Amino acid sequence: MTNPQADRVKATARLSTAAGRRKAGAFLVEGPQAVREAVRAHAAGAAKVLDVYITQERAEREPELQGGAGVHSHRVSEEVLAAMADTVSPQGVVATVALPASSLNDVARPGTGFVVVLARVQDPGNAGTILRAADAAGADAVVALKGTVDLFSPKVVRSTVGSLFHLPVVSGVSLEEAATALGGAGLTLLAADGYGEQDLDVLQDDAAARRTGQTAKGAAKRPSLIAPTAWLMGNEGSGLSEEELAVCSARVAIPLYGAAESLNVGTAATLCLYASARAQRGAQAGAR
Amino acid sequence: MTNPQADRVKATARLSTAAGRRKAGAFLVEGPQAVREAVRAHAAGAAKVLDVYITQERAEREPELQGGAGVHSHRVSEEVLAAMADTVSPQGVVATVALPASSLNDVARPGTGFVVVLARVQDPGNAGTILRAADAAGADAVVALKGTVDLFSPKVVRSTVGSLFHLPVVSGVSLEEAATALGGAGLTLLAADGYGEQDLDVLQDDAAARRTGQTAKGAAKRPSLIAPTAWLMGNEGSGLSEEELAVCSARVAIPLYGAAESLNVGTAATLCLYASARAQRGAQAGAR
Repeated sequence: MTNPQADRVKATARLSTAAGRRKAGAFLVEGPQAVREAVRAHAAGAAKVLDVYITQERAEREPELQGGAGVHSHRVSEEVLAAMADTVSPQGVVATVALPASSLNDVARPGTGFVVVLARVQDPGNAGTILRAADAAGADAVVALKGTVDLFSPKVVRSTVGSLFHLPVVSGVSLEEAATALGGAGLTLLAADGYGEQDLDVLQDDAAARRTGQTAKGAAKRPSLIAPTAWLMGNEGSGLSEEELAVCSARVAIPLYGAAESLNVGTAATLCLYASARAQRGAQAGAR
Repeated sequence: MTNPQADRVKATARLSTAAGRRKAGAFLVEGPQAVREAVRAHAAGAAKVLDVYITQERAEREPELQGGAGVHSHRVSEEVLAAMADTVSPQGVVATVALPASSLNDVARPGTGFVVVLARVQDPGNAGTILRAADAAGADAVVALKGTVDLFSPKVVRSTVGSLFHLPVVSGVSLEEAATALGGAGLTLLAADGYGEQDLDVLQDDAAARRTGQTAKGAAKRPSLIAPTAWLMGNEGSGLSEEELAVCSARVAIPLYGAAESLNVGTAATLCLYASARAQRGAQAGAR
């Protein structure tokens, strides 16, 4: 393909918009690293890559980027690629991937350890950081409520560095749906809230004590990080709304030891998710 | 002041460049939130605000932004402010602040608990995240080695949300200078390195055990987070260089429980710094 005006090129370029993605049921993945992750997830049955558009040069250097069974690989010119991509330089390859079909029911079920719920997080970089931290910490899923930045927009896809393919991502659900499903499946909903009455470090100490068969003083009255947990992360400017706080069992603050007034939502999510990971892994190790 | 072409306006605008800041010995702070923090730090003797440029409207709404003793406050038009500022909209106020005079000797001394050293971190947003996390975790200082993004550039200043005024920031030092001074003051240099042979969670468990008077198996052979620590954080693309790794006593990896291949440097720094905070605060609490 050498014609940047071709219908297929225009259709692919439209995946950079929310309406284009909804209509096509697909999203765009740009650059060798992200395409590599997509192709790997496709091979593992965790994603469905539809088309790969690749330059001759990139295909010679990394033939495996052309995908596997069921993937249509197309040789394209640099001009075609530039017309398809949202980035200035997609480094010789883009792919289209089917929007995942994960639903709340796949996530809200027995055996789920911890998940993160994005409640109107707006910044693509923050959403990407949270997705990547959720993946790193071994979270079971990421749930994006209505009003959250689209997790399949090119900016978020780029900032997740492949994590989007590593764990189930559910989006477009309402607060009520999420609270009912997650609460119904036995998860404790915890609000990450700078004004929270619970202290994340105290909850971590509780979990550490329990691991060694002890019970910290007052722990029975506090939420346990060892229990299945859904962390709610709020909007960058306004935090969690009264409605969002109301569905949570407790509000948890991250202690601020210096003079900082608050933490970035991506930073806060990282600390909450790793606290859950440590608490729950430790509990499993203790049970062995 | 209403003339955007005035010399003072041009001189202030030049603070958006590294050369301009070096020449003037000052940096630019934009917007009410950051100026508020600067003025507060000035009153506390932790920063030196030189000039505040403020619109009539902003001055009426927040007269305290005009600064205190020794601060020159100037009423300016929106046009003048736009010509001075690096941001599109500084929301009615900017200030010039003297570059801090902190040196390694102020930081590398007995009593320092933990610091973070930026080794060629390039992205302003990441540098800002690390500064903010260092502030939140109660770190004693931030040290930026030569080759790191300028911490007083407008982009970094904006992303730190005031943390730049909350703890000592030392920049422009060489790796050797930093290693000699910090090591000489008794700090253990730890490399945050995805390929590290030490596991951050194991070091945290060691510290938790020590807090209850126990010693975890093998802990004597591992670095202690309770001891004074300097965390080295590397470049986004290439991590820490061989030279940078060579000055460290140990390489510490953050466990990746999911399928993520790595963590963003800001995320990694947050987890390392909070691990130090928990270990050292716990040790103090235990000693009381």
